[in-house]
Amino acid sequence: MKKIVILGSTGSIGTQTLNVVSSFPDDFKVVGLSAGSNLDLLEQQVLKFHPSFVYYHDHTDLHSVTELHGSRFTSMEEMASDPQVDLVMVATSGRVGLEPTLAALRSGKKVALANKEVIVMAGELITSLAEHTGAQLLPVDSEPSAIWQCLRGEDKDPLRIFITASGGAFRNRPPQELFEVTPEQALQHPTWNMGRKITVDSATLMNKAFEVMESHWLFGIPWESINVVIHPQSIIHSMVEFVDGSIKAQLGPPDMRLPIQYSLFYPQRVANYSLPRLDPLTIGSLSFSPLIPEQYPCFQVALDALKRGGTYPAVVNAADEVAVGLFLNRRIGFMDIYQLIQETVRKHTPSHQNTLEAIIEADFWAREHVMSIVRQ
Amino acid sequence: MKKIVILGSTGSIGTQTLNVVSSFPDDFKVVGLSAGSNLDLLEQQVLKFHPSFVYYHDHTDLHSVTELHGSRFTSMEEMASDPQVDLVMVATSGRVGLEPTLAALRSGKKVALANKEVIVMAGELITSLAEHTGAQLLPVDSEPSAIWQCLRGEDKDPLRIFITASGGAFRNRPPQELFEVTPEQALQHPTWNMGRKITVDSATLMNKAFEVMESHWLFGIPWESINVVIHPQSIIHSMVEFVDGSIKAQLGPPDMRLPIQYSLFYPQRVANYSLPRLDPLTIGSLSFSPLIPEQYPCFQVALDALKRGGTYPAVVNAADEVAVGLFLNRRIGFMDIYQLIQETVRKHTPSHQNTLEAIIEADFWAREHVMSIVRQ
Repeated sequence: MKKIVILGSTGSIGTQTLNVVSSFPDDFKVVGLSAGSNLDLLEQQVLKFHPSFVYYHDHTDLHSVTELHGSRFTSMEEMASDPQVDLVMVATSGRVGLEPTLAALRSGKKVALANKEVIVMAGELITSLAEHTGAQLLPVDSEPSAIWQCLRGEDKDPLRIFITASGGAFRNRPPQELFEVTPEQALQHPTWNMGRKITVDSATLMNKAFEVMESHWLFGIPWESINVVIHPQSIIHSMVEFVDGSIKAQLGPPDMRLPIQYSLFYPQRVANYSLPRLDPLTIGSLSFSPLIPEQYPCFQVALDALKRGGTYPAVVNAADEVAVGLFLNRRIGFMDIYQLIQETVRKHTPSHQNTLEAIIEADFWAREHVMSIVRQ
Repeated sequence: MKKIVILGSTGSIGTQTLNVVSSFPDDFKVVGLSAGSNLDLLEQQVLKFHPSFVYYHDHTDLHSVTELHGSRFTSMEEMASDPQVDLVMVATSGRVGLEPTLAALRSGKKVALANKEVIVMAGELITSLAEHTGAQLLPVDSEPSAIWQCLRGEDKDPLRIFITASGGAFRNRPPQELFEVTPEQALQHPTWNMGRKITVDSATLMNKAFEVMESHWLFGIPWESINVVIHPQSIIHSMVEFVDGSIKAQLGPPDMRLPIQYSLFYPQRVANYSLPRLDPLTIGSLSFSPLIPEQYPCFQVALDALKRGGTYPAVVNAADEVAVGLFLNRRIGFMDIYQLIQETVRKHTPSHQNTLEAIIEADFWAREHVMSIVRQ
């Protein structure tokens, strides 16, 4: 029985992870839950799963919950590195998952990493730490999971990978209309039902730039071998081309529980009839087209900065997180997200020290910088 | 260096195998070539590859060739089982490959089996012989190769497989027009450039019934788990669904040299820049639809008979081989292929003895039976 901790248990990936875990009571024991918001849901989860450890960002609010159900309040870092824990699902969103991920890797845990911003901020730090301690990094995101599944059993490095992108909420809008779009419109994802921040990141394609970086670090694939292809149906989750020219693709319904389950059971595949199934006889048509850079200015400015390395990725990530938050709160327009990121990247004085301190400092600087531009 | 024999070296798969082998002079030595027709080409091949063994169906014609180049005339069985041989590519068409395949398996060779009729006739015999001697059966056909590649590294049996079918030359014709079509029309395959017999088998979808059987025997997949899906672009060569609902597909340009090379080098993947490449950014649209049984009467009558086992598969195969030959020689119409197969299957008294003799007897009976119907 695998003992698991779920960080971000009340979010989209967190609740879906608990949904999968509930189907396999003999395979998993939830020993830790953490949440940044939605105390009511956290309380229900504690009641159902009886974890040993609970974290909520406001200790005072949590008091009644832990007292009631006999769980112990600990920090995310503490539960992620507790000796009894086998696997940590990092289902937080944004910067908050960084330190707990490092703590879990330092303790040699299996780390299922759904929080892609953590890899974006600290890809090199994380992968070198995992290598050092022997901790296993397990992709959760559907595209990296697809690549991981296609690489299974193959002993050569791939020649190229093709990350598919639905194109987000505004795929069919001319760029000049994007100045006027609302948060509600940006949150209408054509195929996936996800959290708010990642749905906006899909509309800007920032999400795809992050996945390029994720694939670079998780699988050691050179930048020039990573391609993005627009595939509106989100049926093929990614493709891998091998040296002999053969291509493998992974397909599935747009339901995160499938890649979540794959990461939890890896290397086993396990039947789960509560998940939706894809029927190739009725999928109809799958289309593919190149990405038009003018449609997605965020993508290129982000990718260029991500490739530069050092503290640039942390800056892109922080600027995006703040800008998306401002957009969702109607403080700025959709196209301002791009402007703020570009402006912040341009002003950044990078550090090429590969330390947590340098990353956190750059993250802090970028957040402040975005806010200072907005305040002007 | 692998020492290989190519049976059917002047045919479509044979010449493409030699094309692949020519790209890797340090990896392969051609030690045997056999052909049923095209002596001129065989002579050129002998001149280029200097095989130890040569077979041509007319020994007298061959005499000058072997004398000239120092090769020795042997039977296909003899060269396929010669101790120095590592791998036998069975690239013959129809029944003629059966005994040499059995000889190669009996001698424990790796057998790359492009001649699907051999598996159709004697699937059980061949797979149990391979298991007994430890000989390895290597799929060559693009669809079974796709399934084989998708199964790579997976340790559970698949839940379902989806064999793709282009739908052949008459996919867009109403069934009532098929009474009038000519051999020239049947030989216009929409995506693949193949031999004549297999191209007609694609137009009737008989080819796909054979691939269902091939997959059943090569991978031990139950009949009810094997599906056929019409995919006119022939880009996805087949798909495999695993127990967790994840689906893998293998994609490539419609060029047989890719699966041929995969079988020759297996389990290695090797770069070959003389092969065409598929660019996912420009594939445009891939479509999928269910098979309409009325459009392909051969498919259902063949598949039903194939599943019955015993000597039925040999009868279907023989009746088809004779009927397609008669159609190509304008002796019968396109829809008569189906009529002759159906009639012959109906009249067959099956033997469930799993012996070569029973299979050959059924094969002989079916050929005679088809001719007796046509003569009437």
